[in-house]
Amino acid sequence: MAEAAITPAVNNLTLSDTIPQHEFSQRVLIRTILTRPDGGAGLANQTLKVGGWVKKGREQGKGTFAFIELNDGSCPANLQLIIHSDVGPLGQFTPTGTCLHVEGVLQMPPEDKQGKQAIEMKVVKVLDVGSVDPAKYPLPKTRLTLEFLRDYVHLRPRTNTIAAIARIRNALAYATHTFFQKHGFLYVHTPIITTSDCEGAGEMFQVTTLINEAEKIEKELIKNPPPTQEDVDSAKSDVKAKGEIVAKLKADKAGKPEITAAVVELTKAKENCSKIEERFKLKPGIPKKDGKIDYGQDFFARQAFLTVSGQLQVETFACALSSVYTFGPTFRAEHSHTSRHLAEFWMVEPEIAFADIEDDMKCAEAYVRFLCQWLLDNCLDDMEFMVEKFDKNAIKRLQMVASTNFVRLSYTEAVTILEEAVSKGHKFENQVEWGIDLASEHEKFLTEVKFESPVIVYNYPKGIKAFYMKVNPDKKTVAAMDVLVPKVGELIGGSQREENYEVIKERILEMGLPLEPYEWYLDLRRYGTVKHSGFGLGFERMILFATGIDNIRDVIPFPRYPGRADL
Amino acid sequence: MAEAAITPAVNNLTLSDTIPQHEFSQRVLIRTILTRPDGGAGLANQTLKVGGWVKKGREQGKGTFAFIELNDGSCPANLQLIIHSDVGPLGQFTPTGTCLHVEGVLQMPPEDKQGKQAIEMKVVKVLDVGSVDPAKYPLPKTRLTLEFLRDYVHLRPRTNTIAAIARIRNALAYATHTFFQKHGFLYVHTPIITTSDCEGAGEMFQVTTLINEAEKIEKELIKNPPPTQEDVDSAKSDVKAKGEIVAKLKADKAGKPEITAAVVELTKAKENCSKIEERFKLKPGIPKKDGKIDYGQDFFARQAFLTVSGQLQVETFACALSSVYTFGPTFRAEHSHTSRHLAEFWMVEPEIAFADIEDDMKCAEAYVRFLCQWLLDNCLDDMEFMVEKFDKNAIKRLQMVASTNFVRLSYTEAVTILEEAVSKGHKFENQVEWGIDLASEHEKFLTEVKFESPVIVYNYPKGIKAFYMKVNPDKKTVAAMDVLVPKVGELIGGSQREENYEVIKERILEMGLPLEPYEWYLDLRRYGTVKHSGFGLGFERMILFATGIDNIRDVIPFPRYPGRADL
Repeated sequence: MAEAAITPAVNNLTLSDTIPQHEFSQRVLIRTILTRPDGGAGLANQTLKVGGWVKKGREQGKGTFAFIELNDGSCPANLQLIIHSDVGPLGQFTPTGTCLHVEGVLQMPPEDKQGKQAIEMKVVKVLDVGSVDPAKYPLPKTRLTLEFLRDYVHLRPRTNTIAAIARIRNALAYATHTFFQKHGFLYVHTPIITTSDCEGAGEMFQVTTLINEAEKIEKELIKNPPPTQEDVDSAKSDVKAKGEIVAKLKADKAGKPEITAAVVELTKAKENCSKIEERFKLKPGIPKKDGKIDYGQDFFARQAFLTVSGQLQVETFACALSSVYTFGPTFRAEHSHTSRHLAEFWMVEPEIAFADIEDDMKCAEAYVRFLCQWLLDNCLDDMEFMVEKFDKNAIKRLQMVASTNFVRLSYTEAVTILEEAVSKGHKFENQVEWGIDLASEHEKFLTEVKFESPVIVYNYPKGIKAFYMKVNPDKKTVAAMDVLVPKVGELIGGSQREENYEVIKERILEMGLPLEPYEWYLDLRRYGTVKHSGFGLGFERMILFATGIDNIRDVIPFPRYPGRADL
Repeated sequence: MAEAAITPAVNNLTLSDTIPQHEFSQRVLIRTILTRPDGGAGLANQTLKVGGWVKKGREQGKGTFAFIELNDGSCPANLQLIIHSDVGPLGQFTPTGTCLHVEGVLQMPPEDKQGKQAIEMKVVKVLDVGSVDPAKYPLPKTRLTLEFLRDYVHLRPRTNTIAAIARIRNALAYATHTFFQKHGFLYVHTPIITTSDCEGAGEMFQVTTLINEAEKIEKELIKNPPPTQEDVDSAKSDVKAKGEIVAKLKADKAGKPEITAAVVELTKAKENCSKIEERFKLKPGIPKKDGKIDYGQDFFARQAFLTVSGQLQVETFACALSSVYTFGPTFRAEHSHTSRHLAEFWMVEPEIAFADIEDDMKCAEAYVRFLCQWLLDNCLDDMEFMVEKFDKNAIKRLQMVASTNFVRLSYTEAVTILEEAVSKGHKFENQVEWGIDLASEHEKFLTEVKFESPVIVYNYPKGIKAFYMKVNPDKKTVAAMDVLVPKVGELIGGSQREENYEVIKERILEMGLPLEPYEWYLDLRRYGTVKHSGFGLGFERMILFATGIDNIRDVIPFPRYPGRADL
């Protein structure tokens, strides 16, 4: 299938002289004008509507007209508007942040300005204004730092940088789906709420309704005080008394209606008593049983968490539908305040049946290279912005990765290389020794210094990797692999999965984990087991890699980290 | 851009006589053989590898060979394998659920069998077997009900029905992205963990680390008992004593080394004392402040929940990038045990700037019709399976929706129609009266009985709709719209949003909501406000509509509902 045909519409513009209105709003997207190969020049004299937000506005000619740079988010470039004062009060249109919906005529700019833009719009009518009081607008015009903007997550999409990142993020997401669909993978929604605690509860967020329920009961008990022991005793003696009446009537062989009436009274007393006893048991606070929290009363009747990975669950689909992937949010309740960690982040996790670690590496490499090429083909204007403002190597890095075969070396070879570097005087903060995991500085040394290329390291020591990774014939290493790239280091981690029932069971026990929670996972090996492999790509890491942005909090729309979850 | 070009690879097969191996696993996808227009016949005599799971196997010719139906999930159809007993022990290959990875030669079946399949494979070599003990395999061969399968979410993808639903779900997800990308929308990841409680906390799941932390402290205090008041007093007097020594040495004008040594001792005593005081404050249980839970000590330093909708947050991007959508998981902690509710489900929520309710309806209609056409173009084999097994009208319904202009009528007109029906003797369980929301039975009457077509009802009474919906000039109704379709009723709910700062502020107060949590939302109206509209489509409802499946628990891979969250 032709790859060009599946890229977004931006590539499919033809130089027709009619311009498509956006189908579901009352305007033309600015990118449909400005990203034409002729920069929009061929559209001169056309009348159309545009809408967007003012980036910069200035009155000219002693207030007879204004120049306005309008941006609608569809591309990084602004459309220049010229508004004359007979169209409306210019002072209302020019403040940065103002929303304008206008009708106008496209025209070629005066000859001396044509280098700057190929087309501009003379506004004929202002349809709508969303005004801004510049004295109150929270975003300053200059010295806007990314750090400052984190306090305004609801307004920061209006800045050039966050908008460019949003478009790059969007492109990478669609590229991800397109890549896997093209290769016959099925997208599977793995669960967000999970009862499989696969990496130790300490780092997981708990999902519960127990606190809410306890608060409700507390409020209720304040409103309607609970019965006392006396109330319970009194209700019990009432039942006893009513019971005795029935017994006596029966002994006395009283009439049926009389007995029935007494039984009705007894039933009422019993109901009342059990209600009182029920309410007597109500205790403020979270319900406990045998001194522990009674999760039997939680929403899912057991303890539940936010997922840390969809891998184990998506394996159930790989072991039936053979090529699958998941792409969704994952969570870590780590108190990390670094520029590389988020409490909520997105992961892409393919899982492939009948695939070994070689296939896995092949897939990871093809996927990363596809993403890089996609950005070069579809987001070059945003990438040029990133190069200008943040990272002069951003485009070069994409080109390099898209066109380079990844270096592959075993963990053992990697350690040898690092040890050689140390012996030649290279200083690392972390120890290099076979059996210890590579630190970030080691990974960066391999990809940035030694090879200046993406590197895949495979066959890691068993002791530092997860229980589900396939044990190699040497019994010392597992078929795990990490993809390392310049700028971010580890971008992908993956492995062939252990498909042998006896071996994986032993590995679980070896790691001191209980078997019971993994019985379902063991079932995949008990019944129709299959060789399979997969990996995980941290989506925000990929965006850091692509954009050259330093802090992960700036590449996700709504960052969550210790102490912060705005909106 | 040519729509055919962006559909999955299944449409792009040509009748070449070479067959592509799956790029990242050691086999050919069965669909690349069987979904060719010639059913695979043109591939006769080719040697290749396939892998999959046995649907049915039977030994023939007194155990000299076996017929096996193999499925790899890439399409609903099975490839028939013929294995002779000299290839391996047939009894190991035939049980349902067995995983086989084989090499073989494609051949035309004997002439009398050619109606059934165009091609079959003679197995030359069995590369791998994942065997199944039929006596222990949890899935019975027959009488498998969907309800039974809910207890085996990890194995149910191996059934024809759940596999077909998974492929349809995958197709609808990719169709969703393709539709919005095609129309210039940007995909935005709205947050899963939210501190904006937009619909009342009662129905939200709480996300917390407080319980875990409390349990950790509890364990720690049991291991190392906390200091007593005496310990604290003793540490304090130690500080006092050490302080006095320093004071005395200074007063005595002692030597510098002597004073320094005493100061060191004092510092140590102070540190020890503050540690003891700190530990003395440790209390088992969830931290409280002024009698209430101290959320200042929770992970995000405030109470946090799982999102019920990404709409409000995605509006921040619509008010900057103009055409956006979100597609992610949403949550309700409702104790609903119905076939229509899940605690975790997926929503698609586009949001469009410079768009009014008319544009919104146009977009909703185009999107739903696009989804239906996509399934007809890309999943016809799975849809035929659904027609055969579950709902004979499933394909007709897709065709009807894909080709029909949706009926549009105002809520007021809808009520008039329903009242007429009542006056003609139609019985509804729920009252029909202007000002009351339409019940599911009313919606179904409109779409299934009255119009036999998709229906969009718009302009609902203000009193039954959310605060953010645009108030119409009549001041009684809001610019809301619901898309109703046969089989499921309401599929989409949307509205034009109130963009006027004064009006929306008044609406928030009118509904008895506090302003403070909505200040960020009000900012979107304070600064550069824009006319905008959007809607939400319940993704699982769309799958119910498409497949004809009755219970929503069967159309999501891992259903979560009261008392259940398996895996």
